[in-house]
Amino acid sequence: MSSRVWVNGSADARIDTDDRGLLYGDGLFETILFVGGVAPLWRRHMQRLLRGCERLLLPAPDIATLAREATEVIKGMERAIVRITLTRGKGVRGYAPPQNPECTRVVAAFAPPSIAQDWYARGIRVRFADLTLASQPHLAGIKHLNRLEQVLARAEWNDPEIVEALLFDMEDHVICATAANLFVARDGRLSTPALDHCGVAGVARAEVLNALPQTQVRDIGRDELMQADEIFLCSSVRGILPVRELPGRAFEAGLFARAMQARWRELGLVEPEHAA
Amino acid sequence: MSSRVWVNGSADARIDTDDRGLLYGDGLFETILFVGGVAPLWRRHMQRLLRGCERLLLPAPDIATLAREATEVIKGMERAIVRITLTRGKGVRGYAPPQNPECTRVVAAFAPPSIAQDWYARGIRVRFADLTLASQPHLAGIKHLNRLEQVLARAEWNDPEIVEALLFDMEDHVICATAANLFVARDGRLSTPALDHCGVAGVARAEVLNALPQTQVRDIGRDELMQADEIFLCSSVRGILPVRELPGRAFEAGLFARAMQARWRELGLVEPEHAA
Repeated sequence: MSSRVWVNGSADARIDTDDRGLLYGDGLFETILFVGGVAPLWRRHMQRLLRGCERLLLPAPDIATLAREATEVIKGMERAIVRITLTRGKGVRGYAPPQNPECTRVVAAFAPPSIAQDWYARGIRVRFADLTLASQPHLAGIKHLNRLEQVLARAEWNDPEIVEALLFDMEDHVICATAANLFVARDGRLSTPALDHCGVAGVARAEVLNALPQTQVRDIGRDELMQADEIFLCSSVRGILPVRELPGRAFEAGLFARAMQARWRELGLVEPEHAA
Repeated sequence: MSSRVWVNGSADARIDTDDRGLLYGDGLFETILFVGGVAPLWRRHMQRLLRGCERLLLPAPDIATLAREATEVIKGMERAIVRITLTRGKGVRGYAPPQNPECTRVVAAFAPPSIAQDWYARGIRVRFADLTLASQPHLAGIKHLNRLEQVLARAEWNDPEIVEALLFDMEDHVICATAANLFVARDGRLSTPALDHCGVAGVARAEVLNALPQTQVRDIGRDELMQADEIFLCSSVRGILPVRELPGRAFEAGLFARAMQARWRELGLVEPEHAA
């Protein structure tokens, strides 16, 4: 029996309408790139998921079960995105979480988005979001299901030539893109925004920080962003994307982005036509 | 065919796992009290739902259809809570909302919670939440599906003697309870927090503001809260609840709460045993 979606261990593609994942966005998710049956960043995804469970007071899922189910849903796919969704399941109506929740887990496989070769080679055009991210330390960093800020920021533009938008906090620090983290280089030093009050701490970001441990994690203001020598975005689905244009500023793909693209090739995360 | 849950016009109690309501909390909801087959605050609920649709760029639902389905799911129930959930439906994976979304609507009936007579007569004990509400004007006031702040605030206590928690914003203004709005009286003047940067603008709050149009809508600091003569909470599910205790302060149920409880009886929103 082969299916692209499993719910709680069975081939299924539906959940109950009284699941707290739908009622309140009460849960977490991961989107994981598999290539040739393996997910090179699997451990980092699971680390973040467990961190999110601690933060939301959810029982930790069994990682071996998730791995087995992910392997099942991607059968026959050379490249696949697996989305794992973990919710607090059901309970009495109302915000109070059940004392002993039986979590709902959804493991679903999708075809990865097709990405223009040019995005990796020359870089992408990026706008500034009008929406400002709210500051909520209790939810910052984890990948929870409350994503209306990202939806509204992504709804601000339709131009297919613009790939992403950068979001700022209330103090005009740049935080992240709608679905990616960012790195900023100046004078040979790499920095990435601190994510202790908003933003999602991405798995690709963790991989870059691991590869380039001297990177500074700190607040980055708008002025500093505009004076950067190099900017790149990263995500586990789309990899390393140099920024070639922000409103009012053009950039060249730089050495840090190229080094991280090489690292992504080493990890086996790049499509053959992009590996040249 | 009688069922307590309808999804998109059919008796059903499940939605697809790739619905954006689950994926991102991309939608809205209302919880509406029906008594003897009618919902006295129906129009206010629908007004808020439509305001939420505008804010989230969702197509407006057909109100007559919602009314018909609500009437269907409560058949045979003298008192019922109807939860209407409206999501952006499905689309290509990713935050970008589909250009022409086919919304998912869930209309579900529940038995109302049983509420101690004493809560209405003497008032309730209320704590202060540790969690501070984030400031997000784009989402403030509407009843969207991103409710992790409320879930975490409600998870802070288990004591059944404590009925609610008050939440503050980053500037220490009181905003709301986890599932109710609040009104504060001093020297014969009633005030309620402004909800332009966080909080949910409740339907019961709108009814109180309509009944007492001289009420001030403004920022209320913690000091002022503690110096109040009278505080009451209101929600469409639980009605008018006087506060009899905050940490460090006892209160008597006051004239404003009694007047609004009388108004709730006029509207037919009170159980017979509470109507004495």
